[in-house]
Amino acid sequence: MEQLIETEDFETALARRAREVEATLDRLLGSASLEGEIARPDELMRAIRHGVLGGGKRLRPFLVLETAALFDADDNAALRVAAALECIHCYSLIHDDLPAMDDDDLRRGRPTVHRAFDEATAILAGDGLLTFAFDIVADDATDLPAATRVRLVSAMARAAGVGGMVGGQALDLQAARIKPDEAGVVMLQAMKTGALIRFACEAGAAIGDASPGERERLSEFGQAIGLAFQLADDLLDATSSAATLGKAAGKDADAGKATLVSLHGVEWTRRQLAGLVDQATALLDPFGARAGLLREAARFVAMRSF
Amino acid sequence: MEQLIETEDFETALARRAREVEATLDRLLGSASLEGEIARPDELMRAIRHGVLGGGKRLRPFLVLETAALFDADDNAALRVAAALECIHCYSLIHDDLPAMDDDDLRRGRPTVHRAFDEATAILAGDGLLTFAFDIVADDATDLPAATRVRLVSAMARAAGVGGMVGGQALDLQAARIKPDEAGVVMLQAMKTGALIRFACEAGAAIGDASPGERERLSEFGQAIGLAFQLADDLLDATSSAATLGKAAGKDADAGKATLVSLHGVEWTRRQLAGLVDQATALLDPFGARAGLLREAARFVAMRSF
Repeated sequence: MEQLIETEDFETALARRAREVEATLDRLLGSASLEGEIARPDELMRAIRHGVLGGGKRLRPFLVLETAALFDADDNAALRVAAALECIHCYSLIHDDLPAMDDDDLRRGRPTVHRAFDEATAILAGDGLLTFAFDIVADDATDLPAATRVRLVSAMARAAGVGGMVGGQALDLQAARIKPDEAGVVMLQAMKTGALIRFACEAGAAIGDASPGERERLSEFGQAIGLAFQLADDLLDATSSAATLGKAAGKDADAGKATLVSLHGVEWTRRQLAGLVDQATALLDPFGARAGLLREAARFVAMRSF
Repeated sequence: MEQLIETEDFETALARRAREVEATLDRLLGSASLEGEIARPDELMRAIRHGVLGGGKRLRPFLVLETAALFDADDNAALRVAAALECIHCYSLIHDDLPAMDDDDLRRGRPTVHRAFDEATAILAGDGLLTFAFDIVADDATDLPAATRVRLVSAMARAAGVGGMVGGQALDLQAARIKPDEAGVVMLQAMKTGALIRFACEAGAAIGDASPGERERLSEFGQAIGLAFQLADDLLDATSSAATLGKAAGKDADAGKATLVSLHGVEWTRRQLAGLVDQATALLDPFGARAGLLREAARFVAMRSF
């Protein structure tokens, strides 16, 4: 019963944070402009809003916000960084859905950006969002010392770039052809989905001006739940239908891509997930009761698949 | 005769700077990695190198370097920012060349990235390059105060984003359909190509810790040669062959896109160009003889079309 109540609290908190992030994104996208901007590319901005607003659990922003909250950090700065990270996540979905990539028609139960608009606009919408993410973090309105902002820009670029998410996507493209072994699959996933989730926790620690030890701990927490997230995603892909998923299902198997589920089976993967949750929550011990929502987040990430 | 010698000096300097930038890009791309990166996406890195190295006049980096040199700025920092800006320029070319955009097979006389590799890799190569540009500027190795680095990140994001280059490209997509008037064409071009060129000059001023007055002057200089660059490009497109251009020619007219050349003719455009060069060089008067190469750059940008 206590477990149930905690879960409900978590989902309420997740939904509340998602609304805050949605409002922040809406406001930031409304103000997106160059000083001296002369013409407004309305179609592009509509495509960007389609790709960013109105959906998603906003898990990465939640992790930024709740990690920063461990240190009573300024909510405005954390919300801006959280929104920037969500821009990066959403740009990656827009480009990932393109015909030359995953060729998906549906995302969160709605048409993908290139279906609702066109391919060229979807490419530019992704490019614009990625660029905007750095604009948001670097701006003076992100009320953090310049040294913190520039460190966040640097860490975000690394998590999103050729050594992180984009590199992981490139490895994923080759995966059907090259058939990586188990270590290769783990590496690919750590880059493709793990890097941004880890960055979310590291960003919260940086915003909160955490000690080096706390930073390291939260980075490891992020790494553990990033891996859990991917395992849960693989389980979902292997066991769900498109109706529950809101997007095409069974794609990994169709594409001949190895996952830990295909290598080890569903039961093994569930046991791994439980181990990762234990590891993640143990990392939060020094933060005591304040880390309650982050502990629940770790369970939530893993439980999506049950 | 004096004019001829000056031009040779400029072209020697441009070529020398291009070699410096090429070496910097080569070195930076060779070191591109996440701390703890586990797998190297080799195909992606080859595609990125194909799109960035081995070509181009490196005009934007030249403007960063020579503007910074007015203030005896640190060459290492200026080279890194110059290389980052070139990454942004090259990413925009890679995405612009895609089938869904301009659908070009040739760039600088070589196959475009999506022709040499494939579309998905070209999309990711562009995404990776754009992200890497921010990584380069924000990194501690860019030996500038954190406040300067974060200001550069912010200005670069605005020049490249929805209120700058990407916004201009989106307006350009609609141009064949919507047929903007003369003011609309000027606005579109100021965003699409002008914003990055202006940023190049502003960045040099920021790296050199210029006074507010000097910054404003160099920003106006960048704006003037950005406009001149686009006029010269339109003239080239209207009057050249693919052989001299190294890429497809006459595309604007084919696409039904208005340019100032199509609206006013070649002679009018040449007079406009001459006026912009006078305006740009006059803005450099307070910098005296030190600004000789920048004056030549303004003439070079305009003379490409003669």
